[in-house]
Amino acid sequence: MPIIETHVLEGYSDDEKARLSRALTDAALSVVPAKPDAITVMIHEMPRSHYMRGGTHRDPAPARPDAAATVRAYLAAMEARDLDTAKSMLGDGFVMNFPAAPGMSALEELIAWSKPRYAFVKKAYDKVEAFQQGETSVVYTIGTLFGEWLDGTAFDGIRFIDRFELRDGRIVRQDVWNDMAEVKAQA
Amino acid sequence: MPIIETHVLEGYSDDEKARLSRALTDAALSVVPAKPDAITVMIHEMPRSHYMRGGTHRDPAPARPDAAATVRAYLAAMEARDLDTAKSMLGDGFVMNFPAAPGMSALEELIAWSKPRYAFVKKAYDKVEAFQQGETSVVYTIGTLFGEWLDGTAFDGIRFIDRFELRDGRIVRQDVWNDMAEVKAQA
Amino acid sequence: MPIIETHVLEGYSDDEKARLSRALTDAALSVVPAKPDAITVMIHEMPRSHYMRGGTHRDPAPARPDAAATVRAYLAAMEARDLDTAKSMLGDGFVMNFPAAPGMSALEELIAWSKPRYAFVKKAYDKVEAFQQGETSVVYTIGTLFGEWLDGTAFDGIRFIDRFELRDGRIVRQDVWNDMAEVKAQA
Amino acid sequence: MPIIETHVLEGYSDDEKARLSRALTDAALSVVPAKPDAITVMIHEMPRSHYMRGGTHRDPAPARPDAAATVRAYLAAMEARDLDTAKSMLGDGFVMNFPAAPGMSALEELIAWSKPRYAFVKKAYDKVEAFQQGETSVVYTIGTLFGEWLDGTAFDGIRFIDRFELRDGRIVRQDVWNDMAEVKAQA
Amino acid sequence: MPIIETHVLEGYSDDEKARLSRALTDAALSVVPAKPDAITVMIHEMPRSHYMRGGTHRDPAPARPDAAATVRAYLAAMEARDLDTAKSMLGDGFVMNFPAAPGMSALEELIAWSKPRYAFVKKAYDKVEAFQQGETSVVYTIGTLFGEWLDGTAFDGIRFIDRFELRDGRIVRQDVWNDMAEVKAQA
Amino acid sequence: MPIIETHVLEGYSDDEKARLSRALTDAALSVVPAKPDAITVMIHEMPRSHYMRGGTHRDPAPARPDAAATVRAYLAAMEARDLDTAKSMLGDGFVMNFPAAPGMSALEELIAWSKPRYAFVKKAYDKVEAFQQGETSVVYTIGTLFGEWLDGTAFDGIRFIDRFELRDGRIVRQDVWNDMAEVKAQA
Repeated sequence: MPIIETHVLEGYSDDEKARLSRALTDAALSVVPAKPDAITVMIHEMPRSHYMRGGTHRDPAPARPDAAATVRAYLAAMEARDLDTAKSMLGDGFVMNFPAAPGMSALEELIAWSKPRYAFVKKAYDKVEAFQQGETSVVYTIGTLFGEWLDGTAFDGIRFIDRFELRDGRIVRQDVWNDMAEVKAQA
Repeated sequence: MPIIETHVLEGYSDDEKARLSRALTDAALSVVPAKPDAITVMIHEMPRSHYMRGGTHRDPAPARPDAAATVRAYLAAMEARDLDTAKSMLGDGFVMNFPAAPGMSALEELIAWSKPRYAFVKKAYDKVEAFQQGETSVVYTIGTLFGEWLDGTAFDGIRFIDRFELRDGRIVRQDVWNDMAEVKAQA
Repeated sequence: MPIIETHVLEGYSDDEKARLSRALTDAALSVVPAKPDAITVMIHEMPRSHYMRGGTHRDPAPARPDAAATVRAYLAAMEARDLDTAKSMLGDGFVMNFPAAPGMSALEELIAWSKPRYAFVKKAYDKVEAFQQGETSVVYTIGTLFGEWLDGTAFDGIRFIDRFELRDGRIVRQDVWNDMAEVKAQA
Repeated sequence: MPIIETHVLEGYSDDEKARLSRALTDAALSVVPAKPDAITVMIHEMPRSHYMRGGTHRDPAPARPDAAATVRAYLAAMEARDLDTAKSMLGDGFVMNFPAAPGMSALEELIAWSKPRYAFVKKAYDKVEAFQQGETSVVYTIGTLFGEWLDGTAFDGIRFIDRFELRDGRIVRQDVWNDMAEVKAQA
Repeated sequence: MPIIETHVLEGYSDDEKARLSRALTDAALSVVPAKPDAITVMIHEMPRSHYMRGGTHRDPAPARPDAAATVRAYLAAMEARDLDTAKSMLGDGFVMNFPAAPGMSALEELIAWSKPRYAFVKKAYDKVEAFQQGETSVVYTIGTLFGEWLDGTAFDGIRFIDRFELRDGRIVRQDVWNDMAEVKAQA
Repeated sequence: MPIIETHVLEGYSDDEKARLSRALTDAALSVVPAKPDAITVMIHEMPRSHYMRGGTHRDPAPARPDAAATVRAYLAAMEARDLDTAKSMLGDGFVMNFPAAPGMSALEELIAWSKPRYAFVKKAYDKVEAFQQGETSVVYTIGTLFGEWLDGTAFDGIRFIDRFELRDGRIVRQDVWNDMAEVKAQA
C-alpha cells in the first residue's frame, strides 16, 4: 500500500518510465510511512489509438530530460571552462546568485567575478537531489570545494550547496552558497 | 496524461490525501512535460475489509507528518529559544552542520557557538521545499537573515539556506549555509 | 464485452447516472455487435477530495438536463399555447424552420404563420430519440398530427418529424417536416 | 471528467476503436456538461487469452459496420439507380415510408411511385447523424433535394430528412419526409 | 504480484468478502509461486446504481453459504442422531457411498447399515478442506474415527476421509472411505 | 458479476494464464452464486519495466507446475514401476500413509508392503481434483482399483481415494484410502 497505477501514452523509454516510477514511489512515501517495498507502481501504456481526449487522439510529449543529469553536465562544462556547452543548457532569463555578489546573468560575468577570488575551484559531490514543483525542476548539488587560492595555496573541504531551477529542460536559475568566506575569515 | 490512480486504505485525512495527490502530480511532471492541468490523480480508498495481502487484512499506518510543517515549527521554536519544544522534534542521532563549525548534536552547543557571533538572528523565508527520498524526508528552507551584531548594529538581507533530513517524522540532520562571513568580510 | 468503467465525481443523481450508463451502453453497441446483456458499465464515484487535476480539486458540473424531457415539456407548452413557459426553454439565437416557410425566431411568428393553415394541431408521438454530438444535444420527435382544418373538418394520421438542437440545456433550433401539404394535395 | 476506460478484446481496427471512443465521448457529454476536452477515453485491449467468461475464452465479434457509411452507400446506389447494390444493403423485413404514400417494401415500388412525380431527384446533404439504440442503429440524413419536374423545369433547395434503421448492418426501415408537396402547392 | 481487483455489487458481509479474498489469494498461488504476502486482493464494491448490464441495473445474489460450515453442521447433527436437522441440509438427489456398501439416499438407510457394524462412531477432525468447481462446492473432512464395536470394546485412531458435494448450499453427495475393515482384518 | 482483474508480470504461458483464470473463476463462484457465465476474469500483463515495487523492478517467478499433472505423472510412473521417475517428483520429507500401514517414506517400502497383498493393482480414475492452500497444492485422485490377488484371481471396482500435498512442485505427502479390506472381508 499504496498501489499506484499510471496510464501513459506509448513513447517513453524504459529509463524514463523507471524515473517516473521511482518519482511516484517517493511521492507515495511522502505521506504513507510504509517500507519502500510496500509501494507498488504499475504503468499501463497505451498506443495512440487507445487514448482519446475531447474526441481526438493525442501524441505524447517527449519526456522532460533528467534534470539532475542536465545540471551535472552543466557543472562539468563550467569546470572545464567549456562555456559554449554550458550556455547551451541555459534557458531564457537565466540568473545566478553567488555569495554576497550582485545577480549575474552571463557566464562571463561569473568568470570575471571569480578571478580575484581564487585561481581555480572544483567540486567534490556528496549529493545531487532533484525534484519537481509544477513545471519547474529543482536540483540541489551538495559537496565540498577544493582548488587553489590566488597565492597558490591549496584548499579543500569547503562546504557548498548549489540550487538550480530548470524550465523545459534548461537551467534558468542558479543559487550558490558556500563556506569560502567563513574559511578565509578563520584562516 | 498521465492519469494516476492510487489505491489506499481508508484512514487518511483530506489534507493528507491532498498532500499525496500533489506529490504524485509533481512526480508525474518530473518526466511528462505536460501542463499541470493535464495531470489527473484519482484516489481509490478502501475500507480495511476490502484489502487483503497474504490472506490477511491490513491496517493503514498513520500518515507521515508534513515534513515542511515540522521544520517550520522547529525553526520557530529555535527563534523563540524554546529549546524543549525544539528538542521534542529531533530524532535519534541528530547532527547539525553550520558554516565552518564542528558538527554539533545538542541545541545548547549551537547556542554557545552563536553567542560570540551575533546578538540575535531571525529568518525571513522565501521558500520552503520538501520532498521524499525513500524513507527520508528532505526539507529546504531558503531566505534571508536579519538581526543584530554583537555591537548592536542591525543587519538584514543575508542569504541563507538550511537543509533538513527527517526520519519517522523527526529531524535527524540540519545543514546550514549562509553569507554571513562574506558579508562581514565585505563590511 | 466490452466492460466500461467510468470515473466521475460525486454529485450526480441515480437517474443521471442511469442515463449516463445507458448512453455508454448504446455507445458500445454502436461498434461492438454484442447482445446488450454482454455490455457492462461500472461507475466509480469519487468524492471531491479524491480527484485532483493540475494540483487542484475540482467540483462536478451539474448534470446536463435530459434533452428529451426538455423537448417534451416545450412541445406540451406550445400545444397549450403557454408561450411564456415555452420561451423559458429557448436559448440565445433560437431559430425554427417549418415546411417551405421562412426561418422564424419568435414563437409569435410561428403562431401567425400557422393561423391561415389550420384551426389547431396536436401531436401523437411514436418516438422521441435523443443523442449527443459534442456540446450539442439533438432530439427527434416522430409521430402523427391530428387537429382541425380552418373549415372545421378534422384530420389525423399526418406524419411529422421534428428535430431539435439544445445547447446548455436550452433549445436553439427546431426543424419541422410533415406531410400536411401532400395530404392536402391528395385531398 | 469523466474518465472512461473500456476493456475490449483484440480484433478491432484503429478506425473502429476511434468510432467507439467518439461514441463514448458523446455518451459522457450527454450527461456531464464538460468541455469535450475534459472527456478522456482509454481503451484497454486484451488478447483472447487474457479474457475469460464462465471459465472459457471468447472471440470478439467483428465490429458492426459504420451505419452512416452504409446509408450513404445505399443512397448513392439509389441515385445511380444501381438497384442490385442497393438491395444488397437491405435486411429482412425492409419497409419504406414516403410522404403520404403506402408503405413499400421493394425498391421497384418506389421507382414506380416516383415516376409520375418528378423526372429525377438528387440529394445535397447537410448532415448525416448516426446513433445506436440497443441493437438498432439509427441514421438521419438531412439536406435539400434538387432535380427536375416532369415538365423539365428544375427545382432545388427542397428540404428533406430521411431516417433509417439498421439491424446487423443492414437497412430494415426507411422513413422519408420532405417539402416537395408544400413547394408545389406554393408554386 | 499478482494484484487482483474484484468488482462486486454491495451486499456481501465482511465475512463473505474475506472468504472471497482468501479464495482469490489461493487461486493466484495455484499458478504464481510467490510468498502469500506478495498476493494482494482489492475489492471494489458498487452500489446497485453504479453497475449496469444490458442497460439494466442488477441485484446481487445472496452469497453462497460457507460449504465447510454446512458440512460440519451436518456431521454434528448426524453424530447427535438429529436426523431432521441433518436432512434439512440435503439437496435433491442426495446420494451416499460408504465402503463396499450399496449407494444409499436416505439417512435412515445409513443408520440401518451401520447398526450391525459398530455400537457408535465419532469423528476427530484433522482437516476440513473446501473448494469450488463451477457450481459445485466440494468439501473434504479428514481425521480419525473413535467409538465402540458391538462387543463393547473401544476403538480409535481409524483413519477416515469424507468427500461432499454441495449445490446451491445443500449437500447432494457424500462419499466415505475409512480403514475400519483393514483394522478389523488386522485385529 | 463479479469482474476480476489480475495484474501479472509477463512471462506466463497461455496455459498457465488459463489455469490462473479458471482458478480465479472458481474462487469467485465459492462466494458469489452466479452462473459461471457471469464471472469475468481479465488479465492485465505488464512487461518488467512497467512494474516496480520498492523502487526496483521485479522478475516474475516461473509458474508453479500444474499439481494435478504432476500427480498423474507420478502415479503413471508408479504403475509402470519406474521408481526413478517417480522419485524425481518427490520433495524433501515425503511421507506416505496407506490403510492401517505404518507411515512410509521410501517407495521401496511401499512395494515391499504391497507384495503380500496383491499381485498387481491399477487405477481407473473418476476424478482428479486440485486446489491450492497457501503454499501447499492439494490433489485428490478418486476412482476404482483393478488388478489381481496373489492367487491369480482378478478384482476390480474397488473404490479408492488418494490425497497428495505438493510444495514447490514436488509431492511431499500421499494419503491413501480404499475399500480393499472391506471387499476382502465381504468375499
